[in-house]
Amino acid sequence: MADNKRPIGIFDSGLGGLTVYKAVRGLLPGENVVYFGDTARVPYGTKSPEAVVAFSKEISAYLFERKIKFLIVACNTASSVALDEIRRISPVPVMGVIAPGVEAALRLVPPKGRILVTGTAATVASGAYSAALRAARPGLRVIEKACPLFVPLVEEGWCAKKVAGLVAAEYLSGFKIKKPDAVILGCTHYPLLKKVISGVLGPRVRIVDSALAAALAARDALAEAGLLNAGRAGKAAFVVSDAPRRFSGLASRLLKIKTGKVEVKRF
Amino acid sequence: MADNKRPIGIFDSGLGGLTVYKAVRGLLPGENVVYFGDTARVPYGTKSPEAVVAFSKEISAYLFERKIKFLIVACNTASSVALDEIRRISPVPVMGVIAPGVEAALRLVPPKGRILVTGTAATVASGAYSAALRAARPGLRVIEKACPLFVPLVEEGWCAKKVAGLVAAEYLSGFKIKKPDAVILGCTHYPLLKKVISGVLGPRVRIVDSALAAALAARDALAEAGLLNAGRAGKAAFVVSDAPRRFSGLASRLLKIKTGKVEVKRF
Repeated sequence: MADNKRPIGIFDSGLGGLTVYKAVRGLLPGENVVYFGDTARVPYGTKSPEAVVAFSKEISAYLFERKIKFLIVACNTASSVALDEIRRISPVPVMGVIAPGVEAALRLVPPKGRILVTGTAATVASGAYSAALRAARPGLRVIEKACPLFVPLVEEGWCAKKVAGLVAAEYLSGFKIKKPDAVILGCTHYPLLKKVISGVLGPRVRIVDSALAAALAARDALAEAGLLNAGRAGKAAFVVSDAPRRFSGLASRLLKIKTGKVEVKRF
Repeated sequence: MADNKRPIGIFDSGLGGLTVYKAVRGLLPGENVVYFGDTARVPYGTKSPEAVVAFSKEISAYLFERKIKFLIVACNTASSVALDEIRRISPVPVMGVIAPGVEAALRLVPPKGRILVTGTAATVASGAYSAALRAARPGLRVIEKACPLFVPLVEEGWCAKKVAGLVAAEYLSGFKIKKPDAVILGCTHYPLLKKVISGVLGPRVRIVDSALAAALAARDALAEAGLLNAGRAGKAAFVVSDAPRRFSGLASRLLKIKTGKVEVKRF
């Protein structure tokens, strides 16, 4: 198979990475994609770096067997703690979601601006966003806030319910007084709560959607590597480590993605 | 080692089973206990029966190596779907949390009473409570309701916050009109939300705490088997599959349990 016809691999702890998948599909409709969701071990955000690294390497090795041409780690937690280890074993280019999110944020805020990073407990504990933001622009003021209930809220499909607003207020209302210039949605589930988060912080706080940023960066990287597939209708395969029907149902309900039959690969 | 000096094994997907541990400790202070929390793969409640059976058998085999005399499956999801499979490989008596919860509920409700069963998606999907209740008393009216956000709420330590009340109302306020006689807390995390659940359903709905019921049943079963340890201060060992410090911190904060050093066993 010609290199550019080979699929892009995308993986996440569960279905959050489908926001990246959807953005990739929208920008690059000709690409073939293999999406892997680690639904047997979701969520990653409350687990140790050692566990997340081990899971990420297993999944990457599986995607290499599927002959991917490019790998997107569509999970902020895995991008925070496992990216170097994945690159070390990867025969293809690997992209995480942190660097694209950081670049998108830098375009939106003034030189000494304030950035609020939201994410899972593991992503925040890793300090990966803070480190990348401060390395790029030392004058920035960066605050990180873990929001562990956001993922289960999204997985329950409660993004538009009153309880979502209350949970968001619980985590974020402390930032209403001294507002950040931008908030990074540092978890691929969070774009589904964009309205609620914006509702708490107010319309003047710019929102950085790391899923969209990742898709844009992937397009650039594929173009530079001469790996773009200009075909018309790329194919998608979905693989999970558990509960394929639940995955398929949630993908349809939350993201309007029709997965077709979902494959199962257990580890 | 004399049989009765050997430890009781207790396992759960995470820390919910500590409510059972605590009840066992209170009733049987002389017993030695090995507690296992599968924190690398928590939660079980949204996973498939196949995955939960595989995880449960791995953990049970590990506890058999630790020479337990009795096994309590302190996870409603695992009790619902994996109990028979565990018994098939077990050299010691095995008890789940469903049967004790069912018996406790039967003592509280009239012959044609109404029982509401709350639990994880997997427990409710299994229909294990309904089947056991109806087998014991065919005239009962049983309704089951999955409450997937309760576990993450508890794990976040938000049991007393307003958002907990709103989540409980979202799941349970439909049962305020035609009230059940009793509600079974069919997940070992839920006793930590007892006040909130009672707040929604009102004081006349009796609450069946499956953790306490399990501890009482374990005491009876150990006595019948001649396995009670009448010593004074039993020892406890805590083992998890990931993130021991997080486990230890939550055990202390949510349940006032001092674990000491938590061991790690990865699968």
